[in-house]
Amino acid sequence: MPNTPTTAAKLVSEFVGMALLACVVVGSGIMGTNLSPDAGVALLINTVSTIFALAILILILGPISGAHFNPAVTLVSLFNKSMQAKDAIAYIAVQIVGAITGAIVANAMFDLAVIQISGTERITVGKLIGEVIATAGLITVIGVLVARAQTTLIPVVVSGWIGSAYFFTSSTSFANPAITIGRVFSDTFAGIAPSSVAPFIAAQLVGAALGLFVVKAVTKVS
Amino acid sequence: MPNTPTTAAKLVSEFVGMALLACVVVGSGIMGTNLSPDAGVALLINTVSTIFALAILILILGPISGAHFNPAVTLVSLFNKSMQAKDAIAYIAVQIVGAITGAIVANAMFDLAVIQISGTERITVGKLIGEVIATAGLITVIGVLVARAQTTLIPVVVSGWIGSAYFFTSSTSFANPAITIGRVFSDTFAGIAPSSVAPFIAAQLVGAALGLFVVKAVTKVS
Amino acid sequence: MPNTPTTAAKLVSEFVGMALLACVVVGSGIMGTNLSPDAGVALLINTVSTIFALAILILILGPISGAHFNPAVTLVSLFNKSMQAKDAIAYIAVQIVGAITGAIVANAMFDLAVIQISGTERITVGKLIGEVIATAGLITVIGVLVARAQTTLIPVVVSGWIGSAYFFTSSTSFANPAITIGRVFSDTFAGIAPSSVAPFIAAQLVGAALGLFVVKAVTKVS
Amino acid sequence: MPNTPTTAAKLVSEFVGMALLACVVVGSGIMGTNLSPDAGVALLINTVSTIFALAILILILGPISGAHFNPAVTLVSLFNKSMQAKDAIAYIAVQIVGAITGAIVANAMFDLAVIQISGTERITVGKLIGEVIATAGLITVIGVLVARAQTTLIPVVVSGWIGSAYFFTSSTSFANPAITIGRVFSDTFAGIAPSSVAPFIAAQLVGAALGLFVVKAVTKVS
Repeated sequence: MPNTPTTAAKLVSEFVGMALLACVVVGSGIMGTNLSPDAGVALLINTVSTIFALAILILILGPISGAHFNPAVTLVSLFNKSMQAKDAIAYIAVQIVGAITGAIVANAMFDLAVIQISGTERITVGKLIGEVIATAGLITVIGVLVARAQTTLIPVVVSGWIGSAYFFTSSTSFANPAITIGRVFSDTFAGIAPSSVAPFIAAQLVGAALGLFVVKAVTKVS
Repeated sequence: MPNTPTTAAKLVSEFVGMALLACVVVGSGIMGTNLSPDAGVALLINTVSTIFALAILILILGPISGAHFNPAVTLVSLFNKSMQAKDAIAYIAVQIVGAITGAIVANAMFDLAVIQISGTERITVGKLIGEVIATAGLITVIGVLVARAQTTLIPVVVSGWIGSAYFFTSSTSFANPAITIGRVFSDTFAGIAPSSVAPFIAAQLVGAALGLFVVKAVTKVS
Repeated sequence: MPNTPTTAAKLVSEFVGMALLACVVVGSGIMGTNLSPDAGVALLINTVSTIFALAILILILGPISGAHFNPAVTLVSLFNKSMQAKDAIAYIAVQIVGAITGAIVANAMFDLAVIQISGTERITVGKLIGEVIATAGLITVIGVLVARAQTTLIPVVVSGWIGSAYFFTSSTSFANPAITIGRVFSDTFAGIAPSSVAPFIAAQLVGAALGLFVVKAVTKVS
Repeated sequence: MPNTPTTAAKLVSEFVGMALLACVVVGSGIMGTNLSPDAGVALLINTVSTIFALAILILILGPISGAHFNPAVTLVSLFNKSMQAKDAIAYIAVQIVGAITGAIVANAMFDLAVIQISGTERITVGKLIGEVIATAGLITVIGVLVARAQTTLIPVVVSGWIGSAYFFTSSTSFANPAITIGRVFSDTFAGIAPSSVAPFIAAQLVGAALGLFVVKAVTKVS
């Protein structure tokens, strides 16, 4: 098929997008806490930086790789049969490597130790509920827009959802297994301790399933 | 009629949208006050989170249920005869249940007592004027856009109006009877004491009537 | 001509828009200083509230009255002969009355003395330069968009310009003779002392003339 | 060729745009630090002001001069042969003069000494990595949008990228040799010491080359 992105271009796209996204999330967290003694101001800086980058990365790279940048999104694509298992595995692998790379680059950019492991424990029942809701919402908005063929709205809506969820969910909305793993590698504002990773990812996968269910419920027609 | 949402899908849509909206309003209020000692920063967090979610919920669920998420909007639809009494009652019922549910989920998400009653008295003459203006503006912008068949602008304009009114009205713009009731159930930043509910709702209904009047005045043509 | 707004509808539109705009500017200034000890946070609140309302008011009322809400804009229309002297005088009169009304409503909404006179002197050479630049930019963006028949962009671009200029001009960008007069009537964050009004308006008119000049320079074609 | 902007109009456009951009960057930095003791709040003010002005200037002046406002962008145009050497030299010259002019006007606007030289050293390895990433991202998003003929998205995407990068790069994203030179002339929040200029510009040019490389990698089709 002519004029379709090569497999290499797709994987580069997922890697670059994921690495930049993790770099933005971690880097703007460091910037926020470096500059402000007020954690609310730091979170504002972290959020604004993240959602602008997220919208732009989806817009720029979406036509190339679909701009998943999130294993939960890739798994939903696999479940919906819009993707083959082989490709899904490759996507998830480069997403994880990309997220770790991005966190390391952020550390370097702020002249910190390049390799770090976060000590921030994040597990409470409330925060796991937060991850379920954040991920369910993410999968719902993507699912409804895809069902309605309004995919051009995805960059704005996905980043808007994440922007809202950074503030209203108790977990500050990781909502992404790869970014959860990447954030282990920076012991800064956005970090997460290794022991908190598995429960967060489990909650995210529950949220993804819940999102698929909500999409079904609200798109029923007679 | 084929391809129209079922009644169940519509009510699920109003419930999910209202519950999420209340969860966002209450949850981001808790997040703001947890993180920042500066009430201005807390309100910025509360507002940004609310308007992003509001725009997305209207965009995603609007084609399903009309995305009222507000008994004042439903009553205006009834008044304009674009809705039947039976449907309006069902909408308002699920909106109220949804708003209460959302507040409770927000409490749970932040590991607080799940059921709470707010002690925040909010009644002053000025704040009631604030609710009149906030709701009048909301009904005006919706009314003019509907009259002009620019309904695709509603998600952005409604959330922008609420975003502005959170800051410029003395009441921080509840502008919604269901959310007013829901916010009783969280004794946090966004809460409102039960005794303040009736005057707030009365002011909102006065505002809705004033909005209908303004729509009429400015859409007169010769 | 059928389907054109009546003169009364136009004047109501200019009055309502101007009153709301002044109410937003003054009200969000009071909210900001009530909530935050940090004047930077107060200005963020003031700015976000203002630009959302400004964009919405232009969008909603633009098709009715042109949404001038600013005597400088009305004078430019008169100068460009897209408006008659009689209508321009009526516009400017209701704009001034509207702005004063809005400031008074804002005072009432925050349970303050309804009629107040600001004691905030604002005259420095730098601030007058600020008003020249703010108003020149405003007239330039409007002028170029009109010349290029991109008037649908005006709501977003005008409010974006004002949003930027609130922060980068030393005067916080009044850029509007009517709002300058209205802001006399509230001795709060957004207020201006009567003695500062004439120099501010003079600077705004110089800025408007400069804007007309820039539009001419950059739209030259060969 | 009829209806094309004259060379003079183009150079005026690059000068006015660059001067305003530098005035915004420097002026909003002064405003932020004047108003707030919290450097995070000051950076929020600086960023919001900058991205609104940047988007508007690209939108308004893009059809006239292409709205480069950045020697790195002009050099990429030269490299891609969409511009002749003679024109590129003229562009870069007026951009540098414009940026210096803008910084001086900002000083005047805040009643400061008109000519100043910044004493803010900014060189660290991390900050130079920051400039590489900020400029690479800028050239990538422009390059991909041009390759895909989506140039109408450039105003929003470029300003969104800069908005994100102000927060997540350790250098606060100068990403522009002309603005780097202009910022020497104000010893305020946004200033940069003369000794830091050459390494910053070198890093920006490395970033521009990296951006060209990424564009090639992700736009490969089979």
